[in-house]
Amino acid sequence: MSEPGSSRTDARRLRGVLAPVLTPFQADLSPDARRLAGYCRYLLAHGCAALAPFGTTSEANSLSVEERERLLEAVLEDGVPADRLLPGTGSCSLTDAVRLTAQAVRRGCAGVLMLPPFYYKAVSEDGFFRFFAEVIERVGDARLKIYLYHFPPVAHVGFSSTLVERLLHAYPRTVAGMKDSSGDFSHTKTMLDAFAAAGFDVFVGSERFLLAGMRGGGAGCISATANVNAAAIDHLYQAWRSPEAEKLQSEVDGVRGAVEKVPLIPGLKAIVAHFAAEPGWLTVRPPFVDLTPAQRDGLLADLASVKFALPDLRG
Amino acid sequence: MSEPGSSRTDARRLRGVLAPVLTPFQADLSPDARRLAGYCRYLLAHGCAALAPFGTTSEANSLSVEERERLLEAVLEDGVPADRLLPGTGSCSLTDAVRLTAQAVRRGCAGVLMLPPFYYKAVSEDGFFRFFAEVIERVGDARLKIYLYHFPPVAHVGFSSTLVERLLHAYPRTVAGMKDSSGDFSHTKTMLDAFAAAGFDVFVGSERFLLAGMRGGGAGCISATANVNAAAIDHLYQAWRSPEAEKLQSEVDGVRGAVEKVPLIPGLKAIVAHFAAEPGWLTVRPPFVDLTPAQRDGLLADLASVKFALPDLRG
Repeated sequence: MSEPGSSRTDARRLRGVLAPVLTPFQADLSPDARRLAGYCRYLLAHGCAALAPFGTTSEANSLSVEERERLLEAVLEDGVPADRLLPGTGSCSLTDAVRLTAQAVRRGCAGVLMLPPFYYKAVSEDGFFRFFAEVIERVGDARLKIYLYHFPPVAHVGFSSTLVERLLHAYPRTVAGMKDSSGDFSHTKTMLDAFAAAGFDVFVGSERFLLAGMRGGGAGCISATANVNAAAIDHLYQAWRSPEAEKLQSEVDGVRGAVEKVPLIPGLKAIVAHFAAEPGWLTVRPPFVDLTPAQRDGLLADLASVKFALPDLRG
Repeated sequence: MSEPGSSRTDARRLRGVLAPVLTPFQADLSPDARRLAGYCRYLLAHGCAALAPFGTTSEANSLSVEERERLLEAVLEDGVPADRLLPGTGSCSLTDAVRLTAQAVRRGCAGVLMLPPFYYKAVSEDGFFRFFAEVIERVGDARLKIYLYHFPPVAHVGFSSTLVERLLHAYPRTVAGMKDSSGDFSHTKTMLDAFAAAGFDVFVGSERFLLAGMRGGGAGCISATANVNAAAIDHLYQAWRSPEAEKLQSEVDGVRGAVEKVPLIPGLKAIVAHFAAEPGWLTVRPPFVDLTPAQRDGLLADLASVKFALPDLRG
C-alpha cells in the first residue's frame, strides 16, 4: 500500500516543547510505572506540550519490549492523554519495532518517534527505506504518524535528505516529521528548507537550536533538558518572535550548559531526585552509573548560578 | 557473589572454528527454525567445532528476544548438542540480556557470546562492568561461561584491557574468553599476552588472523565466512604448526577476499542459496537488502577463481 496524495491538515499535529521522559526505576532496577505516570502529569502541567517517552533520555534501549509496553499502558491508564504522547518505538529488531508501533497506534498516540535500526552500520539507504516500509505496511493503520529520529552522534546511522524524500514520497500521510539530534544546525536547516513547507515537522533535539529552528520554520524541540527546564524552554517557544527571544535563548542555554558538565541522563535524574526530594530518582540502569556525590554537588551549585527553578515537583 | 579462586580446567572448553550461524527466513521474514536446525547439523559435520548462533552474521539484533529463544529451543530439540553451542545473548537491554543468558545456561549451552550494550556511546568502564556484573549475578549459575564480543567497527563500544581485567578478577570462573572482531591484530595480541596464559580463550573474529592468533596462544576463530568455508578454515586450524600453514592461510584469505567484495551477510546467504539450491536462503531482514543479480553472479565467479568448494549442502 502506497499512500495517494498528501494530507497535512491534521489539527492534532504536535508542536512546541516535548520531553523525552526520564524513566524512574525501583531499587531492583525494574521500572517504576506509578512514579513515571505522575511525572508525565507533572511535565504536561509545567511547560511540556506533549511527551516523548521511551527515547534516548528514557533509557528505552536499556528496557525490554515488554517493559516498554507495560509502562505505556500504565501511563495511559493513569490518565495521561494519548494524543499528547509520542513514544519511541524504534528498534534494531523489525519485529519489535512493529510491535511497539502497533501498540502506540492502537492506543491512540499522537505519533511515534523512531530511531533507525542502529546495530549494523554499513547499511544502504535502500535498507533503511525497506525497514520503515515494512514497519508501515505491517502496522497498516492510516492513523500512524512517524517522526524520524535522527541522532548520528549516538546511533551512528541516520536519515539523509534523499531517504527522507523517498519515505515522504511513498508515505506522505504517515511520515510526519523529524527529531534532529545531529547537533549540527546546518543539517536541521537542510531538512527545514527541503521539507517543512510540505508539512514535515522538524523538532530540534536540543533547545540550544530552538530559536534558530523556529525562525527556519520548525515545530519546536524534543530535548532531554525539557525534563527539568520545560517551563523556560516553553517560554522561549511561545515568545520566539518577541524582542526578548535572544535573552530567553541565552537563559535556557545557561541551564543546558550546567547540565552538560556531567553525564546527561544521570545528571537529569539527580536534578529531579533533588527537587522532588525522592532519592529513588537517582537510579539508572547499567550501562549508566550514578553521578558521584561530588558531581551531584557541583551540578546543583552550577544550577544555582544560572536562572533555574524546578517548582512543584514534591508530592 | 564474587567468585573465589579460578578454575580453568573445564574439559568442555571451546576450541577451533565456530560459525556465527546464518539465520534463514521464510518469505514473510519470519525465522525458518527447521532450516536453521538442519544447517547447524551440516556445519558441525563439515568443519565447525561448535556454533555461535545469534551473532552479527545471524542478524540476531534484527530478531526479537522471543524469536531468538524459540530458535534456540528448535535447534536443541532437533538434536544439536547444547555443549557445542555458544549463542549470542548480548543486548542493549539488561532485562533481555539476562533472559537470553539464563535460557542458554538452563539449556546447557557451552557458553554465551555477549556484545556489550551498544546503544549508548559515552559509557564509562564502570558502566560496562556494572552491566556484566548485573547479568552474572542475576543469572546466578556457576555453569555460566561468558565470552566477550569485542566488535568496535560495528558496536562502536568494546572491551578495554582494564575492563577485561576487572571482569576476570571479579568473575574468574565465568569470564571465559573473547571474540576479537576489532580487525586489529595488535588488539588481539594485547589480549593474548595479557590473559591467555590464565586460561582466557581468545578467538579471532576473522580467519585472516587465525594463524597469527594460534601462534600467539589463541583458541581458534569465530568467523562469518565459517558459514561457507569451515572445512578449509578448520584444516588451517588443525595444521597451524605445520609447514603448509602459510599456504592454507593464504587459501582461506582468498575465499574471504572474494566474499568481502559484496555486503557480507547477503553475500554469505547468496552462496548458501546457490550451493544448497534453495533460493529461500537469499532472504535477509531489513535493514539489509538482497544482493543484486549482478552482485550474485560476480560473487560466484570470484569464488570460482579461488580454491573453494561447498559440498553436501543439498537436501
